[in-house]
Amino acid sequence: MNDTSTVLTQPDTPNMQWIDLRSDTVTQPTPAMRAAMASAEVGDDVYGDDATVIQLEQLAADMLGKEAALFVPTGVFGNQLAVFTHCRRGDEVIAGDDSHLVWHENGAAAVISGVQMRTIASDRGVVPPKEIEARIRVGEDIHIPRTGLICLENAHGNGRVIPLATMAETAAIARRHNIPIHLDGARVFNAATHLNCDVKEITRHVDTVMCCLSKGLAAPVGSILAGPADFIKRARYNRKLLGGGWRQAGVLAAPGILALTEMTKRLGEDHANARYLAERLAAIPGITVDSDDVHINMVWFALPESVDSDQLTAALAAEGIRANGPYGGKMRLVTHWQVDRNTIDRTVAVIQNATT
Amino acid sequence: MNDTSTVLTQPDTPNMQWIDLRSDTVTQPTPAMRAAMASAEVGDDVYGDDATVIQLEQLAADMLGKEAALFVPTGVFGNQLAVFTHCRRGDEVIAGDDSHLVWHENGAAAVISGVQMRTIASDRGVVPPKEIEARIRVGEDIHIPRTGLICLENAHGNGRVIPLATMAETAAIARRHNIPIHLDGARVFNAATHLNCDVKEITRHVDTVMCCLSKGLAAPVGSILAGPADFIKRARYNRKLLGGGWRQAGVLAAPGILALTEMTKRLGEDHANARYLAERLAAIPGITVDSDDVHINMVWFALPESVDSDQLTAALAAEGIRANGPYGGKMRLVTHWQVDRNTIDRTVAVIQNATT
Amino acid sequence: MNDTSTVLTQPDTPNMQWIDLRSDTVTQPTPAMRAAMASAEVGDDVYGDDATVIQLEQLAADMLGKEAALFVPTGVFGNQLAVFTHCRRGDEVIAGDDSHLVWHENGAAAVISGVQMRTIASDRGVVPPKEIEARIRVGEDIHIPRTGLICLENAHGNGRVIPLATMAETAAIARRHNIPIHLDGARVFNAATHLNCDVKEITRHVDTVMCCLSKGLAAPVGSILAGPADFIKRARYNRKLLGGGWRQAGVLAAPGILALTEMTKRLGEDHANARYLAERLAAIPGITVDSDDVHINMVWFALPESVDSDQLTAALAAEGIRANGPYGGKMRLVTHWQVDRNTIDRTVAVIQNATT
Amino acid sequence: MNDTSTVLTQPDTPNMQWIDLRSDTVTQPTPAMRAAMASAEVGDDVYGDDATVIQLEQLAADMLGKEAALFVPTGVFGNQLAVFTHCRRGDEVIAGDDSHLVWHENGAAAVISGVQMRTIASDRGVVPPKEIEARIRVGEDIHIPRTGLICLENAHGNGRVIPLATMAETAAIARRHNIPIHLDGARVFNAATHLNCDVKEITRHVDTVMCCLSKGLAAPVGSILAGPADFIKRARYNRKLLGGGWRQAGVLAAPGILALTEMTKRLGEDHANARYLAERLAAIPGITVDSDDVHINMVWFALPESVDSDQLTAALAAEGIRANGPYGGKMRLVTHWQVDRNTIDRTVAVIQNATT
Repeated sequence: MNDTSTVLTQPDTPNMQWIDLRSDTVTQPTPAMRAAMASAEVGDDVYGDDATVIQLEQLAADMLGKEAALFVPTGVFGNQLAVFTHCRRGDEVIAGDDSHLVWHENGAAAVISGVQMRTIASDRGVVPPKEIEARIRVGEDIHIPRTGLICLENAHGNGRVIPLATMAETAAIARRHNIPIHLDGARVFNAATHLNCDVKEITRHVDTVMCCLSKGLAAPVGSILAGPADFIKRARYNRKLLGGGWRQAGVLAAPGILALTEMTKRLGEDHANARYLAERLAAIPGITVDSDDVHINMVWFALPESVDSDQLTAALAAEGIRANGPYGGKMRLVTHWQVDRNTIDRTVAVIQNATT
Repeated sequence: MNDTSTVLTQPDTPNMQWIDLRSDTVTQPTPAMRAAMASAEVGDDVYGDDATVIQLEQLAADMLGKEAALFVPTGVFGNQLAVFTHCRRGDEVIAGDDSHLVWHENGAAAVISGVQMRTIASDRGVVPPKEIEARIRVGEDIHIPRTGLICLENAHGNGRVIPLATMAETAAIARRHNIPIHLDGARVFNAATHLNCDVKEITRHVDTVMCCLSKGLAAPVGSILAGPADFIKRARYNRKLLGGGWRQAGVLAAPGILALTEMTKRLGEDHANARYLAERLAAIPGITVDSDDVHINMVWFALPESVDSDQLTAALAAEGIRANGPYGGKMRLVTHWQVDRNTIDRTVAVIQNATT
Repeated sequence: MNDTSTVLTQPDTPNMQWIDLRSDTVTQPTPAMRAAMASAEVGDDVYGDDATVIQLEQLAADMLGKEAALFVPTGVFGNQLAVFTHCRRGDEVIAGDDSHLVWHENGAAAVISGVQMRTIASDRGVVPPKEIEARIRVGEDIHIPRTGLICLENAHGNGRVIPLATMAETAAIARRHNIPIHLDGARVFNAATHLNCDVKEITRHVDTVMCCLSKGLAAPVGSILAGPADFIKRARYNRKLLGGGWRQAGVLAAPGILALTEMTKRLGEDHANARYLAERLAAIPGITVDSDDVHINMVWFALPESVDSDQLTAALAAEGIRANGPYGGKMRLVTHWQVDRNTIDRTVAVIQNATT
Repeated sequence: MNDTSTVLTQPDTPNMQWIDLRSDTVTQPTPAMRAAMASAEVGDDVYGDDATVIQLEQLAADMLGKEAALFVPTGVFGNQLAVFTHCRRGDEVIAGDDSHLVWHENGAAAVISGVQMRTIASDRGVVPPKEIEARIRVGEDIHIPRTGLICLENAHGNGRVIPLATMAETAAIARRHNIPIHLDGARVFNAATHLNCDVKEITRHVDTVMCCLSKGLAAPVGSILAGPADFIKRARYNRKLLGGGWRQAGVLAAPGILALTEMTKRLGEDHANARYLAERLAAIPGITVDSDDVHINMVWFALPESVDSDQLTAALAAEGIRANGPYGGKMRLVTHWQVDRNTIDRTVAVIQNATT
């Protein structure tokens, strides 16, 4: 399951009262972010006049180790803008069969960019470099498309992190064939936190990276696309074409700056909470937790067959806790800055109760 | 010229100190809007959980006289989403040759929607209904595309307003041929203000309408696409595909609500200021003002040949006033909530000085 | 009207017995062409092995004054392949509002190439060069598309020929702005015949040209796209992508060679027959002939209101003569190698009879 | 390797003298086909006037067990037209990773139709039905594309035939989810010959089928797209859009009729010859033949490492025999109506000589 799964709970009460474990996309802006929005210096970003956007883009480029960056409305927008700017129509894009690009972007890459997706069965989010290389096509043969882009996703939407060695191996292949890599790094700071490395240790293996300021970093709206300066220049033109030329975006860039400077530092807390949740769940008889895959802030587990998952989500909702129902037989719970140990304990208690 | 003209002044000093007459896209949020952002109730809008977004969309639908509405990042996004949702690939879209869709959206309708633009020479922004009808193509002939959409723009980006009778005549033609009309209503509230009518008197002649909450209404980011409920349902899916599925967008919806409830009421002030500016400029020997076309908040005028426009914009900049250079031989100045009579007087003084 | 108008007569008897004045697209291959097909040396053209195709492509390139040429299934295919190979998605293509590209290709340029058509009202097929220049857009402005291609059509599908001076003037404009011109030369040999010049006098003003071997030249199937060698190399790849990589196409190239070497020489006969037809029709009271526009093999005329055009086409059909009904109030009759003076006299007699 | 592999031999002598084992795409028309071309009754097929095309389309529809059929220039054209007519932009198309559609059509489905290819690793050409079902996506979820089409290929371009039971199982899945199946049946008559069944036993499991009249059936140019009448009606419109509206196509339909009526009967001979070739090669020490996969007219085998494949193809060329070099370590030889046992014996002799 990804962060964009079916809505299973429709609350009757105002949002603010819920504890929400469905995804980290539900995170609300912190009080500091709200204050920053209210006082942000802004200008017309299409004219290049918004000082706060400029500051965010420079900060993001620096942190991600790229020459330049561009502020865009969503992660999908950033990924699609990357594909559109990297590829010619008819190019092939190699991507994991369960990547967000393939799974949750509504076929946008074919619609907007006219590229042929070449999907590979992944090993729970990790696409074997050899499988990628086997699909690369270059040269001038009249009968075949050319590979225009390789897309990786780290951390994957299922919560797993690609090891640095795998990133490096894929990068070596891509460079050997002179093909760019785009990283869907919606949760790349979670990946860096798990790998206990600077995020640049990940991003140095790719040409461009999209990174969400929302999700675990809690900004209300916005993502970053970072890469070489000339690429970002072309992406800026294409952003306008795709309807992303917003105006006084500084009001969103201001919380985005806090997302990068403050919220990236505390992701370890969410990861620790996820592991704590995994351990507590694993202790419940009949529940199987994918313990080895708790890399970031997500816990996947299977309920005993005896449990009615609708009843379980209803029981959680009665406690003010939102959770999605199972997907492919497994439930996913996600931690973030609004989830603390007390919440976890209450959640576990409801689940424990449901399974006995 | 449209609101997206070339940047001619690159200020060295912070944004907040400038008076900006280049466009109404430069408007900054009001203090009330900033406060609303900071305290907005928000949720994950992709899940349909953001109460403030829901409130904005209902308000906008009501005001525009449509069944439903959708909150999108920009005007270009709203227009392109409308084309994408109305049309099948290969359809023709009839539009004025100088419309924003043709002029300033980077060919997006062909890229994203695969539609053929059928452009008509306009009479200063107004496309004659008979010319539209002459281009409509329907039926099953194997050799011709079908007209999928008619696009109007009111107020036009050059500041002129289409009369209600012309809207009605075009609507009658469209209905006779069973073809939908989309209105690029980026400044439709300016048009209603000029026509001294409820905005619904305009929008009742069209099937769907895009309306900007930024520009003269001063919200920092965001536009509305309104239309029939089933159309908006499909547009919601397509918005996700096009990368517009933002999350805690309530922080932008909150100022958007004020744009609709408060700022629409004061557009008459901007229009009066524009007429005042036009009169003052017309009194300067050598300057020719398009006085008959000052319908909303824009004033177009030609300088005497003796005036160096670069020097003029520099002289204005020295006074803290931003203006774009001439486009097609004419300068455009735009009024908005941050422009008062004192500013206008100072601007006129600089121009008067430059022409003598 | 173009050569692709609605079918109005559905004959009950075998094709070969009809005299067909509906269009020159109906021309049947000559006996020499049939013999050439039967004995053509052929090979797999995708492998580059078809000697007859190679011979045709070299001949066509030489005659049209271009470095290279490519054999394609239809005129629409050749035009669309040209647009696809010249343009990037999002580019603008400037073309006459009544050109075949706009009028009769089903919106293909938007679907396949993602280009924005910029249509100009033409003066009966001729697009004023100044109007073209006024729409050219170049440079790096973030808000506008770039002009990627200018499309001309000579002779126009309505039968009029663009003067060489107009071709030259447009070419000068295009070169000044560094924009390529593609010529829809479906009937470019008719144009050259009318202008009494070598076809290269026309094609030297354009970068690429599509020329039909069917129509007045009577080959059963096939058109030529000619241009610079590197352009044709890329077009060859794109032809495969668009499904035009046929195999033993030498069977079609053989009659195509005769179309170029033999049939081009006799087009003057068709033009003389058209003028004869025009004069005979003009002598009938109540009929108005567009006499000034009889440049090639087409005659347009208006019937008196008293004439029922369905009855007229039925009366012609009873004589074994096929004609399309009126389009936009006018009828078009087309001459070609299967139409002689006797046929014309019989046709005129039927029309004369119908109008009295 | 597929029928569109790299050219390795560039003959200096005329085509007609070669024996060509590179593919069955190289087949030349039979003398009866040449005679049929020369005497074919033809008309303007865009007007629906070509009696021979009409006859071919009816014959093809009958033989393939579909309501209607359409004559198109190539197999790629027929496949892409099917995708374009079946799908909405953004739909997913499920296809084998090594299918012709993915492998050899230059990304056309993304360019033309805007569909997202969902590729599955195949078992030497056969895509497991369970893998197809696992990728089907239906419903109204806002975050995912819908499956618009399943594409199968039988016989596969590598020469293997999908068993009828597998076809039936896939069809049952597709019907359960209400998703159409298109069959790339470029060599569907070869498949029927191998399965020893009427071709309708294969095509009844799919909604639409493309079938090549060239390749083993030896027509010079042309393929068939067959399916429901309303589908073909829409495909006829789309064929025009994609540049496939040819004119006097009866000259190609005439040999196409012979391809269906005569050449389908003799494919067993090619298959027997392929098995004979396989047995002879298998008897050569050091050569490994994929004997289990000799279903139709193709033989794959690996040479000993000691053999220089360039020298081998040169040695074959010296004997007047064309062969492609190895692809992925294996050579492919293809039999067809111009290949007899004597040719095979000579070929085997050259190979035997090269390996010792």
